[in-house]
Amino acid sequence: VENPYIVVVTKESYLNSINVLHHIKNDGIFILNTNKTIDEIKESLPNNIKKDIVDKNLKFYIVDANAIALNNNIKNKISLIMESVIMKLSDLLDYKLYETKINDYLEEKFSNKSHSIIESNINAIKNIKVEEVIIIDYIANENKYLKTFVEMVNSKKGDKLKVSDFLDKKDGIYEAGTSAQEKRMISDNVPKYLKNNCIECNQCSFVCPHGVIRPYMLSEDEYNKAPDYVQEKCKKSIDPKLKDRYFTIGISIKDCTGCGLCVKACPGKQNEKALVFSSLLNELDENSDKAFDYLSKNIKPKGDINLNTIKGSQFKEPKFAFSGACAGCGETPYIKLLTQLFGDSMIVANATGCSSIYGGSVPSTPYTIPWASSLFEDNAEFGYGILIGNNVIRNRVKNIMLNSSVNDQNKELFDKWINNMNDYIITKEVYDNLDYYDLPIELVELKDYIPFRMVFTIGGDGWAYDIGYGGIDHVLSSNENVNILVLDTQVYSNTGGQTSKSTPLGSIAAFSAKGKSQNKKNLAKMALAYPQVYVAQVSLGYNGTHLIKAFNEAAKYDGPSIIIAYAPCIEHGIEGGMENSIYMEKLATESGFFPTFRYNPETKVFNLDSKNVNFDLYEEFLNKQNRYKMLSKVNKEHAEELIKLNKENAIATFEYYKKLSEEI
Amino acid sequence: VENPYIVVVTKESYLNSINVLHHIKNDGIFILNTNKTIDEIKESLPNNIKKDIVDKNLKFYIVDANAIALNNNIKNKISLIMESVIMKLSDLLDYKLYETKINDYLEEKFSNKSHSIIESNINAIKNIKVEEVIIIDYIANENKYLKTFVEMVNSKKGDKLKVSDFLDKKDGIYEAGTSAQEKRMISDNVPKYLKNNCIECNQCSFVCPHGVIRPYMLSEDEYNKAPDYVQEKCKKSIDPKLKDRYFTIGISIKDCTGCGLCVKACPGKQNEKALVFSSLLNELDENSDKAFDYLSKNIKPKGDINLNTIKGSQFKEPKFAFSGACAGCGETPYIKLLTQLFGDSMIVANATGCSSIYGGSVPSTPYTIPWASSLFEDNAEFGYGILIGNNVIRNRVKNIMLNSSVNDQNKELFDKWINNMNDYIITKEVYDNLDYYDLPIELVELKDYIPFRMVFTIGGDGWAYDIGYGGIDHVLSSNENVNILVLDTQVYSNTGGQTSKSTPLGSIAAFSAKGKSQNKKNLAKMALAYPQVYVAQVSLGYNGTHLIKAFNEAAKYDGPSIIIAYAPCIEHGIEGGMENSIYMEKLATESGFFPTFRYNPETKVFNLDSKNVNFDLYEEFLNKQNRYKMLSKVNKEHAEELIKLNKENAIATFEYYKKLSEEI
Repeated sequence: VENPYIVVVTKESYLNSINVLHHIKNDGIFILNTNKTIDEIKESLPNNIKKDIVDKNLKFYIVDANAIALNNNIKNKISLIMESVIMKLSDLLDYKLYETKINDYLEEKFSNKSHSIIESNINAIKNIKVEEVIIIDYIANENKYLKTFVEMVNSKKGDKLKVSDFLDKKDGIYEAGTSAQEKRMISDNVPKYLKNNCIECNQCSFVCPHGVIRPYMLSEDEYNKAPDYVQEKCKKSIDPKLKDRYFTIGISIKDCTGCGLCVKACPGKQNEKALVFSSLLNELDENSDKAFDYLSKNIKPKGDINLNTIKGSQFKEPKFAFSGACAGCGETPYIKLLTQLFGDSMIVANATGCSSIYGGSVPSTPYTIPWASSLFEDNAEFGYGILIGNNVIRNRVKNIMLNSSVNDQNKELFDKWINNMNDYIITKEVYDNLDYYDLPIELVELKDYIPFRMVFTIGGDGWAYDIGYGGIDHVLSSNENVNILVLDTQVYSNTGGQTSKSTPLGSIAAFSAKGKSQNKKNLAKMALAYPQVYVAQVSLGYNGTHLIKAFNEAAKYDGPSIIIAYAPCIEHGIEGGMENSIYMEKLATESGFFPTFRYNPETKVFNLDSKNVNFDLYEEFLNKQNRYKMLSKVNKEHAEELIKLNKENAIATFEYYKKLSEEI
Repeated sequence: VENPYIVVVTKESYLNSINVLHHIKNDGIFILNTNKTIDEIKESLPNNIKKDIVDKNLKFYIVDANAIALNNNIKNKISLIMESVIMKLSDLLDYKLYETKINDYLEEKFSNKSHSIIESNINAIKNIKVEEVIIIDYIANENKYLKTFVEMVNSKKGDKLKVSDFLDKKDGIYEAGTSAQEKRMISDNVPKYLKNNCIECNQCSFVCPHGVIRPYMLSEDEYNKAPDYVQEKCKKSIDPKLKDRYFTIGISIKDCTGCGLCVKACPGKQNEKALVFSSLLNELDENSDKAFDYLSKNIKPKGDINLNTIKGSQFKEPKFAFSGACAGCGETPYIKLLTQLFGDSMIVANATGCSSIYGGSVPSTPYTIPWASSLFEDNAEFGYGILIGNNVIRNRVKNIMLNSSVNDQNKELFDKWINNMNDYIITKEVYDNLDYYDLPIELVELKDYIPFRMVFTIGGDGWAYDIGYGGIDHVLSSNENVNILVLDTQVYSNTGGQTSKSTPLGSIAAFSAKGKSQNKKNLAKMALAYPQVYVAQVSLGYNGTHLIKAFNEAAKYDGPSIIIAYAPCIEHGIEGGMENSIYMEKLATESGFFPTFRYNPETKVFNLDSKNVNFDLYEEFLNKQNRYKMLSKVNKEHAEELIKLNKENAIATFEYYKKLSEEI
């Protein structure tokens, strides 16, 4: 059907992303299943839908099929109801005839079920209430970027974009943070905050892969100024060190993917948790958006909170949020934390892979800091190039400062800058306070380079262990201040789970259907072959404090760094699903499967974080994942042999790290 | 000058490689400096030169300028003599006038030198003897391959080749061993064998980079059958275990580059060496070629000699000889030895770099075994692909054998083959003895795959440490039987000495004019991160026996292997030149700069060959090379700082290897 006469939409959220009426015939019929009233729907209907209704002279009807189903004891079974609505509104069949025929049909269909089902369906059909909505106008002009790119592409009409639409995008720069405008509402269930159970640990926020759930600590003044719908979500902080503060959790429920990690992470016992699941429809009201918006725009972290802790870091705004990553993604909490720690003082060079897809599928991006992606095979070099280019330009800035006559205020700021070139806070302060009217024009042109920014080169194991490893090695061999973050899912996650060199022995993956027969590559050990490289292995679910230390040390160290982060993935087939990803990070390290450590070339100390591991947990860890279990089912003996070798290697590797940690 | 009237050639050997008369005008003059007589020159003049003389009706004159110079005490100073010859033969100036003017010119030119120089020059000019040579015919047709490719390309006329000339080269396969036909005669001085001083150690052959000098052990019968010109070079062997044998050294003097390594390596004291330098012209006679040809064609190593020793290996024919590598090249002795040990049972996949240039500049190749080169960035994968392809086809061979009805002789050979698929000697024996008329046609078509061949992937540090390292790592991560040989010159030798990741800290190289400030990459340590990889570092000049063990173990081990070979290079600027390259290999290891070891995953033993190194020699080793010395001259303080760090790293690295060798 290319040009339908009738369009039926059963889920209202589709209207935001797809132009459902694009191909409908003039004078056609548009039927929408919604729990909204006529007035509400008139207000919330997307502008492009309104435009089509008006332009094409459509008849527009709404029906609350879910309510009808619920009232007639056939919860969520709406297909027959919607079919009947079509019959009622069209002249395909005489509706009376349809009503008699449907009885026979149901008798036949449900012959082996109880008669009450038939009755419920018949009653539902009888109680159908359809209302016509009259739409007479729409807004002629809207935000050009959103209209031209975000909505066009998201509604699968990207191929209609003209070359001329891209005229002001010639430099390849796109608007940042546009993911926040998508409001995809993909989960029926979202967390609900029960403030009285909350102990303010911020674990929920720490583990959230999408930056949807965030803690806020309000001063008394901020609390008093806040609107009612914010105040009612707040409670007096229980932190004894912070007097007269108010605490709350903001949740952007329209961006939630429903992974459940926050509810799992909440340390309260059953029935005493501060977070419980609730249906999106129940939670959605006009204030749900407003409260989150108010909090995220107005409440900033206070100086008396240590922001370099699990708890403290969560008061900082993530500069990476609402990405399109899978629910429960093991990678994104690392990136989110990184942006919370370093914020505007960082630039990301991103390799091909999951992280480039959820990081920047044009036209949307979850980042609000400078971010660019490059190829699988050259991202390390790409980040390195950004750094070197930055250094060259900043040295030019320095030379201009050294050779310019400026007023005293600027002179003082120049001195400050020259002595603290690589300190973000000071250079940002200089940037904010310079008297730009007094500056030489070349310096004004280069002003974006005044604040220091460090480069983080990010990607998965497909990049870092395989296709881009040549470049990683090249960059590590330098003495330059490049930081590398490897999100180690141990498999090519984005393309369907192909074997990488990080895939462990005996694990099943695409191209390793019989269990991978090669040893896992030890990237950390190889990086340690360079005496000047900072090397860490981290696991967020095992020890978040260790992770924060590693990020800070790598950022501070004036040389190359590489951090390898254990990141569970849907491809692992975790028992119980991705709501256990954080728990699996914990078990991975506890069992000795993924030792965590930091080696700092400045101190020459190899700090083994996971000192006491329990290899008795090893099989338990493996058996909680389909990637290992599947092989046992097919070939038990072979699986056992590979797993034995896998564990032997793990023990030898751990012993190697232990020895390093015992050296002076 | 595009079409000269006069062409003057001062060195006769140019005639073999360049068509010097290609652009000369008809009826022009060709003058050649040679010590040959008119009859000799008529015989030896290359056919293409004769052709041009006849076709273009040239006047051809010879003069022995070197003899004139020598007789007048101005040895080797021939430019004025040749200039005078031109004046004599042309009508550019009145020759009498020229003679008077030249006197004034010399007075002015040598005003600050002794008057005897002027006199010597004047006398030389007076004694010039020029003879005309009449050439009347040439050979119309010669060997097509040599004519079409080798001579055309070598005489810089490759651009004249037509597409149709390549019709039978569509498959990219070229004749093997064609370097042997070039006879380039590039050195004026070559070794001369003094048989009575010889102790039959074969060191001369072991170190020869070009396979020019080779030992032969003849049985009594072989000796008796040999022609006089061979017999006279032989002597009774002094080896007490080998009764009634005759020993000699064959030297292909026309292929010698005059590096002097053989003379250096000869263990006799001054005046007692079995090899001394002599002039090429003195050594050249009709038997010099014949003796080498006879020996190399007829004398094979005997079964009672252990061929896996320094001495024994040299009785085997190198399958890589007369390459275009530099005189004294540090790389080629390794490749030559490899082909002596494994001969026809190996295939070479060669990376871009020196070794691909001297290994296969079309149309000449020094190899007489299967050899192919690939790109800088993919040679490891290229070799891996050859291996995998080979394995697949050989498994097909196996399946054909298992499913064919053949006669009893073939049946027996099939069984033998199937049980010894990866044994070259047995599979070659099967190949030689099969009754091909009885075989299924598919097997006949695949017969080249019956003998086992191992794959050696060869290249320099630019490949293995840098551009091709991603592929090296990928191949090492496999469990396949790929062998990698890295010829580590620690610099991009072929392109002019650019820094590679193997270049040591503080060494000067292109792109590291101020001394390399990054640490040398430890490729061996990185390879050791894979538990299943055979890893060795070797230094031919330090311990050839260790090197032979490493080659044999790597070849035998059924998994990936990597051997890193220290290879001095002209880019090092070695004190005294490349005749000291073998000595520098010795000192590199003795001083701790390049530790040698073997790690065998089968035994899990790390065998440190260079157990007792003397770091007091470290500075001596560095100071014998311009790559270090130069920096001291420019910036002594900076040089000392880098060298200090370099040595500290070397000591730490050696300690690391020592620890590995002490583990159980």
